[in-house]
Amino acid sequence: MKEKTPSESRTMQTDLVLPNETNPLNNMFGGELLARMDRVASITARRHSRRIVVTASVNHVAFNKAIPLGSVVTVEASISRAFKTSMEVIIDVWVEDRESGLKSKANDAIYTFVAVDETGMPVPIPQIRPESEQEVQRYDAALRRKQLSLVLAGKMKAKEATELKALFE
Amino acid sequence: MKEKTPSESRTMQTDLVLPNETNPLNNMFGGELLARMDRVASITARRHSRRIVVTASVNHVAFNKAIPLGSVVTVEASISRAFKTSMEVIIDVWVEDRESGLKSKANDAIYTFVAVDETGMPVPIPQIRPESEQEVQRYDAALRRKQLSLVLAGKMKAKEATELKALFE
Amino acid sequence: MKEKTPSESRTMQTDLVLPNETNPLNNMFGGELLARMDRVASITARRHSRRIVVTASVNHVAFNKAIPLGSVVTVEASISRAFKTSMEVIIDVWVEDRESGLKSKANDAIYTFVAVDETGMPVPIPQIRPESEQEVQRYDAALRRKQLSLVLAGKMKAKEATELKALFE
Amino acid sequence: MKEKTPSESRTMQTDLVLPNETNPLNNMFGGELLARMDRVASITARRHSRRIVVTASVNHVAFNKAIPLGSVVTVEASISRAFKTSMEVIIDVWVEDRESGLKSKANDAIYTFVAVDETGMPVPIPQIRPESEQEVQRYDAALRRKQLSLVLAGKMKAKEATELKALFE
Amino acid sequence: MKEKTPSESRTMQTDLVLPNETNPLNNMFGGELLARMDRVASITARRHSRRIVVTASVNHVAFNKAIPLGSVVTVEASISRAFKTSMEVIIDVWVEDRESGLKSKANDAIYTFVAVDETGMPVPIPQIRPESEQEVQRYDAALRRKQLSLVLAGKMKAKEATELKALFE
Amino acid sequence: MKEKTPSESRTMQTDLVLPNETNPLNNMFGGELLARMDRVASITARRHSRRIVVTASVNHVAFNKAIPLGSVVTVEASISRAFKTSMEVIIDVWVEDRESGLKSKANDAIYTFVAVDETGMPVPIPQIRPESEQEVQRYDAALRRKQLSLVLAGKMKAKEATELKALFE
Repeated sequence: MKEKTPSESRTMQTDLVLPNETNPLNNMFGGELLARMDRVASITARRHSRRIVVTASVNHVAFNKAIPLGSVVTVEASISRAFKTSMEVIIDVWVEDRESGLKSKANDAIYTFVAVDETGMPVPIPQIRPESEQEVQRYDAALRRKQLSLVLAGKMKAKEATELKALFE
Repeated sequence: MKEKTPSESRTMQTDLVLPNETNPLNNMFGGELLARMDRVASITARRHSRRIVVTASVNHVAFNKAIPLGSVVTVEASISRAFKTSMEVIIDVWVEDRESGLKSKANDAIYTFVAVDETGMPVPIPQIRPESEQEVQRYDAALRRKQLSLVLAGKMKAKEATELKALFE
Repeated sequence: MKEKTPSESRTMQTDLVLPNETNPLNNMFGGELLARMDRVASITARRHSRRIVVTASVNHVAFNKAIPLGSVVTVEASISRAFKTSMEVIIDVWVEDRESGLKSKANDAIYTFVAVDETGMPVPIPQIRPESEQEVQRYDAALRRKQLSLVLAGKMKAKEATELKALFE
Repeated sequence: MKEKTPSESRTMQTDLVLPNETNPLNNMFGGELLARMDRVASITARRHSRRIVVTASVNHVAFNKAIPLGSVVTVEASISRAFKTSMEVIIDVWVEDRESGLKSKANDAIYTFVAVDETGMPVPIPQIRPESEQEVQRYDAALRRKQLSLVLAGKMKAKEATELKALFE
Repeated sequence: MKEKTPSESRTMQTDLVLPNETNPLNNMFGGELLARMDRVASITARRHSRRIVVTASVNHVAFNKAIPLGSVVTVEASISRAFKTSMEVIIDVWVEDRESGLKSKANDAIYTFVAVDETGMPVPIPQIRPESEQEVQRYDAALRRKQLSLVLAGKMKAKEATELKALFE
Repeated sequence: MKEKTPSESRTMQTDLVLPNETNPLNNMFGGELLARMDRVASITARRHSRRIVVTASVNHVAFNKAIPLGSVVTVEASISRAFKTSMEVIIDVWVEDRESGLKSKANDAIYTFVAVDETGMPVPIPQIRPESEQEVQRYDAALRRKQLSLVLAGKMKAKEATELKALFE
């Protein structure tokens, strides 16, 4: 299968925050943002793999910035690295100030998707060839995260996680 | 007020077609697409004007291509031309084939928005400086559409609509 | 196929404007109204043809009147004229003042639908026999609009559009 | 306050049954129909009283007929009788067969609403002057239902419920 | 079929009241509560019968207490008694005060469901063995309600409704 | 402030999976489950603190089990430990087989919430007194997770994270 670049599947979704998505302080529910990020990330994973994709996991997500009712929110998702049948997707979220027009980073998150066939069985996918400097950094970090998750799940020995070990030396 | 380019406010929204948006043939309702286009176009108009914006009118829209349940749909909106308090927004819609990854044009539409203050009164907005060839063409055509709509509304005499007349000579 | 009158398929829908359908001025989004009109008009077209129907096009629509949150909105759709496989539907929208009980016209729009079979192929439909004076006027105007759209699409020569030409003579 | 007729506030809502409103047999959830009936009935009560209205109670409702996904459903609500600050609303529901065009009665229900001011306190409302034969029957029956509900709630003695007693003699 | 206790199928749903579910006084629409109760009660009926279930009827429901926007609402449904193919479900609704933490009863309602097979035909279900004192009371009252509804529907003679008659003697 | 037990704020929500929440394999979107868990966990945090609460972070979440359309899903959230102004909430998710009635664990997740006043400023909250064995285990583990997150954020030195260190000795 031919490698693909992150920009071939990058997905952007700009939308408003509506009343039903807000809490008593009139800010967006964290859970609604998690659902939007899942949807945009799943489109990215589907574009990269041209397969049906299912969410496998979500990394730690921190909500640092309140997003008020009526905000314009942009969710942008890119594949950071593909493995045999799974892909790591990094999602960046920006909020825009209506008066100044300034966009500020509200959030980011990392989701993993698996490509499957019509029966739900995992299928091989194209690998990623990172291009920009940020894409290369995210590509390298994705491997360390993969190793960490395998170690934590007891599926890899800590000493075999070469990239991960290098961090502690 | 300083001119702005169309790319400063261009807005893109990629999303899936969900079951509640489809008709008995499992294709997207025309009306749901009209609502999505309105939302994306209104964000574009708001980004350009940095004001509250309200939909003033929708030009003729043709639905040439069925958009099946589960499709990935991209709606992209750009300001073609700004007038004193109103903006014309052109919206292009693409649908993507999951297996081939090919994007095909599904639709386009033209909406007009007015910028208003908190009391709903129209307010002046920045003008547009088109850059690409397509932006220049759409900028010129927007004036003809504006004149045509003024003539049809009886607010401009046909012979004063210089750009429009030129088409018939 | 036996002719039918507009009143046999006329459809009326009265409903409230809910928070998720409103903009920062607490007025209904134009796009939400376009979606409601599509839904009611499609029911009218389905009642007339007793077939599955799909939206083919929307004529120019102007939004002249803001519709506040909580309003009672009535959308009424009638077939103005049927062609071989397509129907023109005219939609009138009223808003009601809670205190005075006065209904005022908020909007109107013209949508065209095509009747199709289960495979999506166009099928012939009954013709319209207008009854009231307004129905007769709308029936006649529908033919001019049809000719104009064919001329603009390059599918009819201007001089063959008899009803249209008569307007300019 | 001047009496009003039922036809001055009668409300009709025709709409489709969408996927999110259906159970595993692809028929409309009873609860969704109860919610639609409440919304249409509340508009009727608001039109009659020109006040904010709140649902006070729902009479026994039986669901005799399954309403399949994609059906055209018409909900029609009329005031049967007004009391001091409350109104009884009768709701009739029809479903339409797409191929034959036949409408059949799917359901009916009786809701009671109270008119209130901005603080939620009940306020007096206009009385009803029934016109058609069915309106007169429903107007009379509403009083018996009111007496029955007062008797059951221990707020009226059985022997004072003249209209109700007459039924058993 | 083996008897089951009410606690084996009891279902609890705690959720917030969102903006789209509220009226102009910012209180929950009665109809939205009816729809929530139907959903929770249908899960209870499905758990008891392990079958597809459909709503057959709703008893008289009174709305005595306004439920404000943002409230935490708990809907709890239990089978009171099973008949041959139908079940009576009693639903209790509580609202919680955020500051004091006090739960107060907002409502209750009685729905009846029928268990059906994939073709919609009624199927036999397990009977109920009440355990707590309240369960026994509700079990007994359910039979009287069943008899009353059969008498009212003309399907049982008043004198045969033994449990019902006992009340009047 | 008086300590509270986890059972005083435990929250349970049982609901169906509806069509709009499912992917092309007819299984629930991961993002929709994340949103439901956020809503139930936020109610738990609000019950414990009797304050407005906002989502601060979501721990790693794995989706191991597909949840089909129409499933009955139970989301149960409990406070594992309270800190000065924040609470850790553990959410367990079960899915139920309609025919066998068996409940199986579909998922779990850990969210952190902060209690705030009306201006969004953090406020102190009651501490947790765990009761059951599982509550004690989760209470202890919550402290290690808190320390790990402070260490990772550079706000605590690794050697001061006593409970965390103990794990590696």
